[in-house]
Amino acid sequence: MEQIGWGLGASLTLASLPAMARERAGVMDNKKLNIALCGLGRYANVLKGGLAASQSCRLAGIVTGTPTKAAQWQSEFRIPDKNSYTYQNFDQIVSNPDIDLVYITLPNGLHKEFTLRAAKAGKHVIVEKPMAFTEKDCQEMIDACRKAGVQLAVGYRLHYDPHHIELKRLGQHKVFGQVRLIEASLGYRLAGIPPDDWHLKKAIAGGGPLMNLGVYCVQSSRYVLGEEPVAVTAQFGPVTMPDLFKEVEENITWQLYFPSGAICTSSCTSNCNVDRFYASADEGYFELQPALSYGPFKGRTSQAAFNFPVVNQQAAQLDDIARHILANKPLPAHISGEEGRKDMRVIEGIYQAATSGQKVDLTS
Amino acid sequence: MEQIGWGLGASLTLASLPAMARERAGVMDNKKLNIALCGLGRYANVLKGGLAASQSCRLAGIVTGTPTKAAQWQSEFRIPDKNSYTYQNFDQIVSNPDIDLVYITLPNGLHKEFTLRAAKAGKHVIVEKPMAFTEKDCQEMIDACRKAGVQLAVGYRLHYDPHHIELKRLGQHKVFGQVRLIEASLGYRLAGIPPDDWHLKKAIAGGGPLMNLGVYCVQSSRYVLGEEPVAVTAQFGPVTMPDLFKEVEENITWQLYFPSGAICTSSCTSNCNVDRFYASADEGYFELQPALSYGPFKGRTSQAAFNFPVVNQQAAQLDDIARHILANKPLPAHISGEEGRKDMRVIEGIYQAATSGQKVDLTS
Repeated sequence: MEQIGWGLGASLTLASLPAMARERAGVMDNKKLNIALCGLGRYANVLKGGLAASQSCRLAGIVTGTPTKAAQWQSEFRIPDKNSYTYQNFDQIVSNPDIDLVYITLPNGLHKEFTLRAAKAGKHVIVEKPMAFTEKDCQEMIDACRKAGVQLAVGYRLHYDPHHIELKRLGQHKVFGQVRLIEASLGYRLAGIPPDDWHLKKAIAGGGPLMNLGVYCVQSSRYVLGEEPVAVTAQFGPVTMPDLFKEVEENITWQLYFPSGAICTSSCTSNCNVDRFYASADEGYFELQPALSYGPFKGRTSQAAFNFPVVNQQAAQLDDIARHILANKPLPAHISGEEGRKDMRVIEGIYQAATSGQKVDLTS
Repeated sequence: MEQIGWGLGASLTLASLPAMARERAGVMDNKKLNIALCGLGRYANVLKGGLAASQSCRLAGIVTGTPTKAAQWQSEFRIPDKNSYTYQNFDQIVSNPDIDLVYITLPNGLHKEFTLRAAKAGKHVIVEKPMAFTEKDCQEMIDACRKAGVQLAVGYRLHYDPHHIELKRLGQHKVFGQVRLIEASLGYRLAGIPPDDWHLKKAIAGGGPLMNLGVYCVQSSRYVLGEEPVAVTAQFGPVTMPDLFKEVEENITWQLYFPSGAICTSSCTSNCNVDRFYASADEGYFELQPALSYGPFKGRTSQAAFNFPVVNQQAAQLDDIARHILANKPLPAHISGEEGRKDMRVIEGIYQAATSGQKVDLTS
């Protein structure tokens, strides 16, 4: 995977891992990484396929507030009662040697709390995006995991798709020259969603499509350019479904400005389906459509179509995380908590720009 | 051509044509429309192909300030001296029965002056886009042509490409349901252009890529939706070529808001090549790439690729204009001066929004 211009960030070095974690890693030689899924909603069901296809992970435990889900998952994955937790007794996981890592797929508003609790229980953590609602919370989560001697990853699955690895290569290696303009948009039409769905509730979702989907647009522009944006402008769009979008934005557009002069324009929306990435460079373009969803992706450059295998993003991500943790190696920077923090810094700036109507400086 | 939701605007009715024009139309039965090209720059050379392929037009005269160009064009098209004008003696065209129409391909800043002079000389007019620099000037040009009893068209070539006729049908007939999001961008990298090129001079170009290319993005969103935008936000991008872009913007992004709740986001840029149109509707999408240039275009919907013949946009446009004028019929609304006025109203709003940083109301 290309790392040009893409700093290692705050990833751990082997020496920095506390003794407890090193010992545990030693114990795990030649075994699978035992994962507890925390939150058995929609994305947990997506991860089922990833876990099934994974070579190095085993679903060893669950955390859920719904007894019927517990029964169903326990049966399907042969999970013993002692590895099935509720949100109330979750902290008892500290004394469960069957669990190495907690994968948090809860609604957004619970990401921080359960990351802190999992870290305190001495378990490695994968937290789904958005990592938290603020950069400050992300930092708190990073610090808590470091202090506890556990590794922290954000579920940045796109880094494991060959199409996105190619986007990075094309952009950062300037294969078509300097990238000048990126257009990256993602949205799903939510008409028909129950009005009490958590995605519509500010307290638990943290926001609308920007909070839920925005990291994919933000991050792909960052890793294709290999730069951090210095400023942002943004605009809330109109509300066309007022019965649903009372608390969070229905759609939002923004423009990121990068040090090289490159611009990335994006839409995130809940009023239509859109899933595309395009980059124009001095001597050509490259693009994906679908681009940012679970795939399968389809891409091309101005010269030729992409021809990459379809991969299970989740399985590839889980296996890479397992390989690193089982070998007692720090996780790759591109899925680190530090990455999540950088994305959340931009997301916060986008909301601030849309709310104020002013360009927001991201350098200070 | 679909006209659903696309008003007839201020197109002339037959009865409204003054007697002089009706008589002239009668005289022209069974003959070609005789055109004088005014301004022999880059686009005049593009039009050469259109004129050659046209069945109903004849290049009968020229207007140029460059004697060498006059000699070359006169020789190539066997144009007699009496049909070759300079900008100084152009008004004498009033007494030249060999010329029916003046096609103005001058730099932007001369569009208004020569439209008024051609109208005063009793000649029909095609003026290239942008029609003028302000909505007020467009109105003045419309009024002058109406008063003179001549027809006025803007060189809106895209209406004659089957790909765009299909875009209109898909959008206005809601073939994939209501369109919610349009992304339409157009740009050409101008690095290497001579610093004294007129496109870089505010007085003669009127602006940068928005003024030169913006109408294509604005208009395609208008005719796909069959609506007029009610508000706009816009942002100037950074200047990466400060030696060139001292007077006009190097790039600009904007967001148009339509009564239905649909949004159109666009970039116009002189720092990279981009040429794409995408529309997301409730049950699918449709897109072109290339989309807004001279073609050939390539398009698809979420269901299938487009399969339309390549047409010479300019020839099709010239022939349609000729057919209408020769039959003494008012020109189609979609290429009317009123269309140009509506586009310029939006372009003015975009500049105002980018300059002020405020959302601009387009309804008042």
